[in-house]
Amino acid sequence: MSKKNKENNYQDYLRINDLLNLQNPLSEKSGMIAHEEMLFIITHQVYELWFKQILYELDSILTIFQNDYIVEKEMGVINSRILRIIEIQKILLDQITVLETMTPLDFLEFRDLLVPASGFQSVQFRLLEIKMGLKSSDRIFFEKQSYKNSLDSSQKKILSKAEKKPSLFDGVNNWLNRMPFLDFEGFKFWDSYQKAVSQSLQNQKNIFLKDSTISLQEKKQLEKEHNISYKNFIAIFDNKKHNVLVKNGKRRLSYKAMQASLLIFLYRDEPVLHLPFNLLTNLIDMEKYLTSWRHLHSQMALRMIGKKIGTGGSPGYSYLKTTLENQKIFSDFMDLTSYFLPRSKLPKLPRNFQKNLGFYYARLEDNK
Amino acid sequence: MSKKNKENNYQDYLRINDLLNLQNPLSEKSGMIAHEEMLFIITHQVYELWFKQILYELDSILTIFQNDYIVEKEMGVINSRILRIIEIQKILLDQITVLETMTPLDFLEFRDLLVPASGFQSVQFRLLEIKMGLKSSDRIFFEKQSYKNSLDSSQKKILSKAEKKPSLFDGVNNWLNRMPFLDFEGFKFWDSYQKAVSQSLQNQKNIFLKDSTISLQEKKQLEKEHNISYKNFIAIFDNKKHNVLVKNGKRRLSYKAMQASLLIFLYRDEPVLHLPFNLLTNLIDMEKYLTSWRHLHSQMALRMIGKKIGTGGSPGYSYLKTTLENQKIFSDFMDLTSYFLPRSKLPKLPRNFQKNLGFYYARLEDNK
Amino acid sequence: MSKKNKENNYQDYLRINDLLNLQNPLSEKSGMIAHEEMLFIITHQVYELWFKQILYELDSILTIFQNDYIVEKEMGVINSRILRIIEIQKILLDQITVLETMTPLDFLEFRDLLVPASGFQSVQFRLLEIKMGLKSSDRIFFEKQSYKNSLDSSQKKILSKAEKKPSLFDGVNNWLNRMPFLDFEGFKFWDSYQKAVSQSLQNQKNIFLKDSTISLQEKKQLEKEHNISYKNFIAIFDNKKHNVLVKNGKRRLSYKAMQASLLIFLYRDEPVLHLPFNLLTNLIDMEKYLTSWRHLHSQMALRMIGKKIGTGGSPGYSYLKTTLENQKIFSDFMDLTSYFLPRSKLPKLPRNFQKNLGFYYARLEDNK
Amino acid sequence: MSKKNKENNYQDYLRINDLLNLQNPLSEKSGMIAHEEMLFIITHQVYELWFKQILYELDSILTIFQNDYIVEKEMGVINSRILRIIEIQKILLDQITVLETMTPLDFLEFRDLLVPASGFQSVQFRLLEIKMGLKSSDRIFFEKQSYKNSLDSSQKKILSKAEKKPSLFDGVNNWLNRMPFLDFEGFKFWDSYQKAVSQSLQNQKNIFLKDSTISLQEKKQLEKEHNISYKNFIAIFDNKKHNVLVKNGKRRLSYKAMQASLLIFLYRDEPVLHLPFNLLTNLIDMEKYLTSWRHLHSQMALRMIGKKIGTGGSPGYSYLKTTLENQKIFSDFMDLTSYFLPRSKLPKLPRNFQKNLGFYYARLEDNK
Repeated sequence: MSKKNKENNYQDYLRINDLLNLQNPLSEKSGMIAHEEMLFIITHQVYELWFKQILYELDSILTIFQNDYIVEKEMGVINSRILRIIEIQKILLDQITVLETMTPLDFLEFRDLLVPASGFQSVQFRLLEIKMGLKSSDRIFFEKQSYKNSLDSSQKKILSKAEKKPSLFDGVNNWLNRMPFLDFEGFKFWDSYQKAVSQSLQNQKNIFLKDSTISLQEKKQLEKEHNISYKNFIAIFDNKKHNVLVKNGKRRLSYKAMQASLLIFLYRDEPVLHLPFNLLTNLIDMEKYLTSWRHLHSQMALRMIGKKIGTGGSPGYSYLKTTLENQKIFSDFMDLTSYFLPRSKLPKLPRNFQKNLGFYYARLEDNK
Repeated sequence: MSKKNKENNYQDYLRINDLLNLQNPLSEKSGMIAHEEMLFIITHQVYELWFKQILYELDSILTIFQNDYIVEKEMGVINSRILRIIEIQKILLDQITVLETMTPLDFLEFRDLLVPASGFQSVQFRLLEIKMGLKSSDRIFFEKQSYKNSLDSSQKKILSKAEKKPSLFDGVNNWLNRMPFLDFEGFKFWDSYQKAVSQSLQNQKNIFLKDSTISLQEKKQLEKEHNISYKNFIAIFDNKKHNVLVKNGKRRLSYKAMQASLLIFLYRDEPVLHLPFNLLTNLIDMEKYLTSWRHLHSQMALRMIGKKIGTGGSPGYSYLKTTLENQKIFSDFMDLTSYFLPRSKLPKLPRNFQKNLGFYYARLEDNK
Repeated sequence: MSKKNKENNYQDYLRINDLLNLQNPLSEKSGMIAHEEMLFIITHQVYELWFKQILYELDSILTIFQNDYIVEKEMGVINSRILRIIEIQKILLDQITVLETMTPLDFLEFRDLLVPASGFQSVQFRLLEIKMGLKSSDRIFFEKQSYKNSLDSSQKKILSKAEKKPSLFDGVNNWLNRMPFLDFEGFKFWDSYQKAVSQSLQNQKNIFLKDSTISLQEKKQLEKEHNISYKNFIAIFDNKKHNVLVKNGKRRLSYKAMQASLLIFLYRDEPVLHLPFNLLTNLIDMEKYLTSWRHLHSQMALRMIGKKIGTGGSPGYSYLKTTLENQKIFSDFMDLTSYFLPRSKLPKLPRNFQKNLGFYYARLEDNK
Repeated sequence: MSKKNKENNYQDYLRINDLLNLQNPLSEKSGMIAHEEMLFIITHQVYELWFKQILYELDSILTIFQNDYIVEKEMGVINSRILRIIEIQKILLDQITVLETMTPLDFLEFRDLLVPASGFQSVQFRLLEIKMGLKSSDRIFFEKQSYKNSLDSSQKKILSKAEKKPSLFDGVNNWLNRMPFLDFEGFKFWDSYQKAVSQSLQNQKNIFLKDSTISLQEKKQLEKEHNISYKNFIAIFDNKKHNVLVKNGKRRLSYKAMQASLLIFLYRDEPVLHLPFNLLTNLIDMEKYLTSWRHLHSQMALRMIGKKIGTGGSPGYSYLKTTLENQKIFSDFMDLTSYFLPRSKLPKLPRNFQKNLGFYYARLEDNK
């Protein structure tokens, strides 16, 4: 083998020696070895390595979203990278069982040495949240309250730089905003869908009104409930209400992006909407695993440190619990489910929509 | 082979033919086959089979807990059966990914046919909650609100019969109540521990008070925080406060059972406390997986049906979300973590405690 | 609520009462209850329910493959159903941990009662293998040896009927055979690829031949190794060798289907090849999980029953071990990896290929 | 906060900056960034971190096994650390799905840059195998064949030093060898068990011989089979045969250690055997996950590189496949299952055995 190759071995390539020198338990220095501190260090280092990988994928995705047009090929790349992120997220979840083999009493052996280091000071995790699109209002609160002292200035700079750039949420929202399918060769999706919804709900009402096995009193009750449902459903077609929801922080997508998402969910069987549908589904999954991680992490924290304050003066369990509900990024996509009609009641797409956008392997063979 | 054996084949033993005849999609009858209904049925049947297995293990455990004394051998059996329940719970969680391959739009194809059947009507799941020890006050609320119509009288009878019997929580609480270690040959755990706690907290205070690198102002702040911590910690030794917490539903264990739990957690390295420690840990795990299941289930429900009301007039997502926090059974064990001292600060057990209770393989060999 | 709806409750819809009556432990009848028999029965029933679901999906896929043309929409459906099968397969694997909570000594308590019932008599599992495309030669051997007595005539009829129908392998092979991309507007994939391979391997050779840091002796050794690699690689372009491999049972795909697969793997970034690439990858995954299941199942059998013969006179561990290696269905796809060139060395596709087949969201917007 | 504490933050404690500087893709240096190389590097680094943790636990266990007597407390520690290793092993398995999001074509983009670095050069993994107790004969073969060039002299020194120390297998074998239960106050386990086995097998034979529903011809066949079973079973009581098996490498435990293991498996319900039984079971599990890892790893290698030779001139798939079967460490424990009698047929333990070794919580309470 050539000299060049000799240098190129597994240990050097992966920097194994350096890597295995980065575990320096404080309890060892203090003279009272706490056996479980090694596990604590290694587990957290593994988390940081995975965070780096997630950020690496996320950055590459954000670069693509900066383009004005996203070619289908790129959409495929985006999806496969989000799927990779999701696979990593599953490991982040599973790994908690490893850390849980350390009992609270074990942790107590070295916990005081860590103060004020805190599990919440992971800059990479906060970067990850920012780049995914966690709302800055939540982040600011969170900074003022409890993080003011935990980050140094270079770390703060990294985070505020990231905050100024478009997040994954922004990228997706803009891309949905540009979707060409909402007004396509005479087919106006929003109008057609509103009509279909009205008709479908009216039919539902007629069915129980005409049902002779239902008493008059029951009918009144059912009609009352139905009217509430109707009002709730139809609200989605009201641009003003949408804007109020956005203003109050209850919705994040633009009005047009929201329409495009609904179209994608409803007509996802169309080949041309296959990748877009996968994207939205993958985003929901990614957030699901993020939420699950927070949930399991908060459970573990409760178990490990009780309801006392966390290490580093961090807010511990009660903080973790609130993040669970409030820090949603892509929840608009989940909420849309409430506004679905079944396939049989959907407005038919124009022939051209299907013909132009759905390509057939068969057609190619015919051409030969 | 004998005639007897010929009948005894795999298909008959497992009643395969009958089993595979129990899937009757409503959409098939209605003429519009909804492909995903089969998945819906089979997944739920699998859930019910696992629920039966969990109940089978739970019943056998409850039977053992009815004894006045629990021999160590039985404690081993209890632990191994709870571990089995936990393995099943993990599968219940993992299985959700299978059901999630059905998209909300797929579900919409047959969802209306199911009304008012609801995923919340699983009698076995409610039995399971009752037998584990879910507080009846929670259950009653839950019944009045939404279940009044969903169960028939025979089902109600089964549930109310179960409610009258001691639950797993009751069994564990009673067993802890009877624990002989709290007052053992002159060693009074509760008194000794209170002394150790006072001393340890006082030491902590002295350290920062004497630290010349800390400013006077900082010292004042730290002392203030320390006093709060002290007050919170010491509260555990107050029987009256305990009773108030129990009355308000914030604690469930008896005062003595709580002390026994703390002793088990703190001295779990003692061989005689090995199995009891495993039991408490397994109970925490079992509840953790129950909570995770509710969490993932509520996430899935939100995704599948949106924020609309669930099938069967069931309360859907918002109900599921509240159960997450309020329906805790063994949370007392987790809360105890807040009252741990590190091993080095624990009161020493009397020699006899260790000598009598820790047996050595070595000793046996010496006897030969 | 209407009368109709009242009947339609969860318990009846899912046939819960019937379902929960199908567990009849033999040890109970014999008077000596073996606690773990319930687990054994329920676990196997759960397996059979999942097998039914897999077969349900498989049948729907096979129906689509009977079409002469497969529209892209259908390709999406096929992929999503295979993904569902894979999610179920993961559960089949995970579930083994539940069964393993039963120790060999527990099993011994009721094992003799089961003789000659055997875990290998699952007709559904054999159907599944047949429908996926397990080679009939393997199956015949397997039947003659050990299954002659274990199935009744109606079961045999079901299996032999399935054997006569095209399997998933057949469907995929035919579909690949019809692929239009191999000879497309003047682009002949097979010729171009052969040229690219020759050139690339020649270049590789030149690099080390010209490397002055490598001694003459080393160069001779490297050249020898390179020639073997070259010969092995280039063999794929030999139709006769292909046929010999097929005849010897070492390859299954037709020559043209094999070419089409290679094209799909190499140009999978092309949007038009996105779904086909997913299909091949999913098939590999599906087989991977099948193989893993066999592996874990054989490990568990070894642990449970030792190297003795299995229940029902079944061949037990040693049989299970051989199936691991020999019963491959889609291994051709994995073997193709050996014949990949890196992207940078692939022949360029003609402009029309990309233009016609890759559609752009951007283009649509331009048209407006 | 004090100055001392300010230095003590999360980033510094975990050496995050250093850690995140150890990923240096070769493709980046070469100017042609291969996106997936980062994943390749990070995944392998994560593997190495987990290997370090496993070795850390393993070393602490080996230290305990060096003691002449192992106190029950220590046995508890050993078990909990092996359980931790197992939890890590599960993650090692799960992580493969992350690496598999890199397709073979992706890997090809940078694979040539790695040559001759090889995934088999992980010194830590080989240490792990040595410390677990992989037979040195296997290791030597493996070294001569393929690893002669891949390790530098300091690495070789580390490995050969480890080889000279007692492994986990040695520790367990010695500990079993010292077990005091085999000849306990007049109860000679080995003699009693041999008698019980003879009687039980004779009874089995009588049952079918007296069964009037079985034909004479069938009886002859059954008797023939029974005699073979009998001979195989009874062989375990033959010290000479044992020694031959050991010599041929088919068994590894000493004759006495093997007897002790059997006693532990059969009487594992005895409290005193609870921890020993857990140990043996955990060792089996640990090896199961090691074997599964090798299996999945070999599958992945096949998929990634085909049947060609691996990177670094490593033997690739075919090597990996053989390791699967041959490199067993604790398989003796699994093989013992073949020599179990059901609980009802086991020789009764002497009263003193139970009385002395099984302690009761009840007893303590009585004493008060």
